[in-house]
Parts: sequence; C-alpha cells; structure tokens
Amino acid sequence: MEDRYELYYWPMLPGRGEFVRLVLEEAGAPYVDVARLPKEEGGGFEPLQDFMSGQRPGQPTYAPPILVHGDLVLAQSAAICAYVGERHGLAPDDPGRRKQALQLQLTIADVSDEAHNTHHPISATLYYEDQKEAALEASRSFISERMPRFLGYFERVRERSGGPWLMGEALTYPDLSLFQLLEGLAYAFPRGFAKVTESTPSILALRDAVAQRPRIAAYLESDRRLPFNEHGVFRCYPELDLGD
Amino acid sequence: MEDRYELYYWPMLPGRGEFVRLVLEEAGAPYVDVARLPKEEGGGFEPLQDFMSGQRPGQPTYAPPILVHGDLVLAQSAAICAYVGERHGLAPDDPGRRKQALQLQLTIADVSDEAHNTHHPISATLYYEDQKEAALEASRSFISERMPRFLGYFERVRERSGGPWLMGEALTYPDLSLFQLLEGLAYAFPRGFAKVTESTPSILALRDAVAQRPRIAAYLESDRRLPFNEHGVFRCYPELDLGD
Repeated sequence: MEDRYELYYWPMLPGRGEFVRLVLEEAGAPYVDVARLPKEEGGGFEPLQDFMSGQRPGQPTYAPPILVHGDLVLAQSAAICAYVGERHGLAPDDPGRRKQALQLQLTIADVSDEAHNTHHPISATLYYEDQKEAALEASRSFISERMPRFLGYFERVRERSGGPWLMGEALTYPDLSLFQLLEGLAYAFPRGFAKVTESTPSILALRDAVAQRPRIAAYLESDRRLPFNEHGVFRCYPELDLGD
Repeated sequence: MEDRYELYYWPMLPGRGEFVRLVLEEAGAPYVDVARLPKEEGGGFEPLQDFMSGQRPGQPTYAPPILVHGDLVLAQSAAICAYVGERHGLAPDDPGRRKQALQLQLTIADVSDEAHNTHHPISATLYYEDQKEAALEASRSFISERMPRFLGYFERVRERSGGPWLMGEALTYPDLSLFQLLEGLAYAFPRGFAKVTESTPSILALRDAVAQRPRIAAYLESDRRLPFNEHGVFRCYPELDLGD
C-alpha cells in the first residue's frame, strides 16, 4: 500500500487533528489535509459531512479526525496516531511496548478532554456563555489539582525513561502529542501553566526538543500549522486562567 | 511468556476495570484480580498504592486499571483491552482492522467518560453533592442529545458490519465493552435508556448475545462480577434520569 494519507478534520481549528498532523509531519509521510483544500479542489465542510451522514463506505466514524489510507477509514486521534506511528518507526516494535506508547497517548488525550471540559463542563452541545459559571469552577479545579497531577505524572515518566524522550532513546508519537498538549495548556492558561511547570523541567525540555526536530521546525513555520484559537480544545479565556 | 495476568483495580466498583475483566474472561485467560484478594493474601488498596506512589518498577501509570504481564506494566483500559484482545484472538489480525477495533473501543470510552461527567461535570475531585445543579443540566443534555447520537452511531456500525458483531462475523473486544456500556447506561438512566434504545434494536441484540457467551454467562453468575453501585462510572441517581 502506498504511503499517501488523507486527513479529514475541521479546517478552522487545530483541535484533535493536530495530534495526527504532527505524526504525519515527523514521519515525512505525504498527506492531504482534505478539508483545508480550496472548495473547488474538494475542500471545506462537504467532505467531512459525507462521513458524518454515512455517505462514505467502510466502518462508520463518529467524529473527525478521520484518516483514509487505501481502503482503510479510521477515526479517533489516538488510534490514528498509533497506526501512522507504528508504520513509520515512531513507535516501539515490541507488542507490549507498543501498548505502553498507546497508554501515554491515551493519558495525553485524557488531559486534553479535561482541558476542553474547563470551558464546556455541562455539555459540548451548549455555548460556553451558557455554562460560564460552571466553567469557572471547573477551571479552578483543573489548574489547581488536575494539571499539576497530570504534568507531574509525565515528568515522572520522562525521568524514569532515562530520556531524552518519554520512552527512552527513541522518539515515539506520544512525544509529539505531549508537545502539542503543553503548547495548548500554555496558550489556554498562561499563568496557571507557568506556575505548574516550575516543577516539571524535563517535559519542558522535551517540548523544546520536539520543536527543534527539523521536520517539525519546518512545519511550525509553514502555513500548514494552524494557530490556537477559541474554537478548539485549548481556548484562551483569560477569566478561566485562575491561580490560587 | 506465560498467560497469567495480574489486574489491579479498585476492589469495590466495576468501573473501567470491568472492561478489562470481560476480555480476560472471554479469553479464558488465567488472571488474578489482585486488589480483591483477602488482605492477608496481598489484596486491598496497598498494592494499588504501590503503583500510585511510584514504588513499582516499569513505565509509571497514572491510574488503575493496571495490567501486569511478565515484565510489562500497562495502564489505560483501552490499551489493556487491545493488548489482551490481540493476544487471544479477540481482535482482527490486519493492522488497519486492529486500529478500527481500537477506534470502536475509544468511542465506547468516550461515552463512558461522558456518563461519568453527568454526575461529576465540574471536577472528579469534588463530591457529587457539591456539583448537583450542574449534574442535572449535564444529565439532561446527555440523555436527550449525546446518548441518542452515540447509541445511534453504534447501531449504524453494527448494521453496516453485517453482524452479528460490531466488526462482522467474529467477536472482538469492543463487543464486550459495548455490552458493559449498555448495561451501565441501563443501570444509571433506566427511563432515558429505554426510550433511546427503542430505535437501536441491533445493539440490544448484541448485548444479549454477549451475555449468552458461555464464559461470559458463567462470569456474570459468579462472585467475580461486581454489581454496579454509586462509586463507579455508572451511578443510579434517580434525579438525573431525566427524559423530556
């Protein structure tokens, strides 16, 4: 099977699609970010809607990101990252170690979900403005309790691995996702993040090392990289950046 | 490596550990549910705390469930289910199809997380009683919008696969987890669940077929099976079973 991938994700936000893009970019794999093509070349929302409405063949997908590779249609960012990472040397070879890479990826996804929950604690289907009071409480708890526990955990993983990466000497796809998670938390909660990461120097160094990988550095400079904004997982609402 | 597994999970609730137990049971794999052993045989909270405090060697784990298999220490229920499922013929052989099984598992985990969120919308670190008003709102949205979308999705997956299982003719580990998810939703929201599942007959039939698998039927009758209660993911708070 040739190594040409199609990625389908909301074109106006980095969101969970960005975890996938970083793996494709570090792998140097050719891919088309379909929804970001001009509309006359098949971009926009329409190709995404074909998945949502069940027009596409293959196992149905609940939500983007969606990867198409030959006949394979695959959703869920952690499953996609594992699939691409394992095909391109960005995951261990041993079956047990592969699942340990997935374990790290799923815990990164859990933090992302909780970060999303800070601005949408009641429901993803309501507006932020309609759940703002709950969002203040959720953010306070996230910054003072959850973020320190989660980032402290990744610091311990990195320290025990011997480094420079989460699983040791070889970079794996969760390293790329941890970079994105840390960038997102720093964007959403600049004060809270600065305080919490005073005690996690190793994962800050890992973040910087990811940014300096030649392919990632080139990607971050390109217009393929979408900036954070207030439509995605990580949103900068200054009123939620609560430190105690 | 011999096929003896150790499972570490909170001994008083089914929670996310139950997804793992069902795979081990259907596989017929020998395992010890360590924390449920009598205290004098090494059970109770102590072995769990050894993981939480970093006393155990291996890649650190953030939270139970945790599987130990030889030297491997693995957390995150979806990663554990995939690991055990792939070793015991409860997952496809093809790498892409394996990731599609994981995709289904991760969407089941998403529904579980949202079900947990109905009673803990603000934070997992606060008591239910301290976030009850937000829980009412979250439950209303979950029952009227999220649950129908999610269960409708699994109904489409099952219909498109040709059945009798989510991925076609062979049972895979997400089938076992979908059984547990449906049991949990029926326990937590009996009225809401009955209404939503009027339009999802195929996954109700799948749930019944899982319960009739000989090994699962024997397990459900045994005292290894923990009943749902108000400490786990799926809790029956009648005030949250809101139908509109």
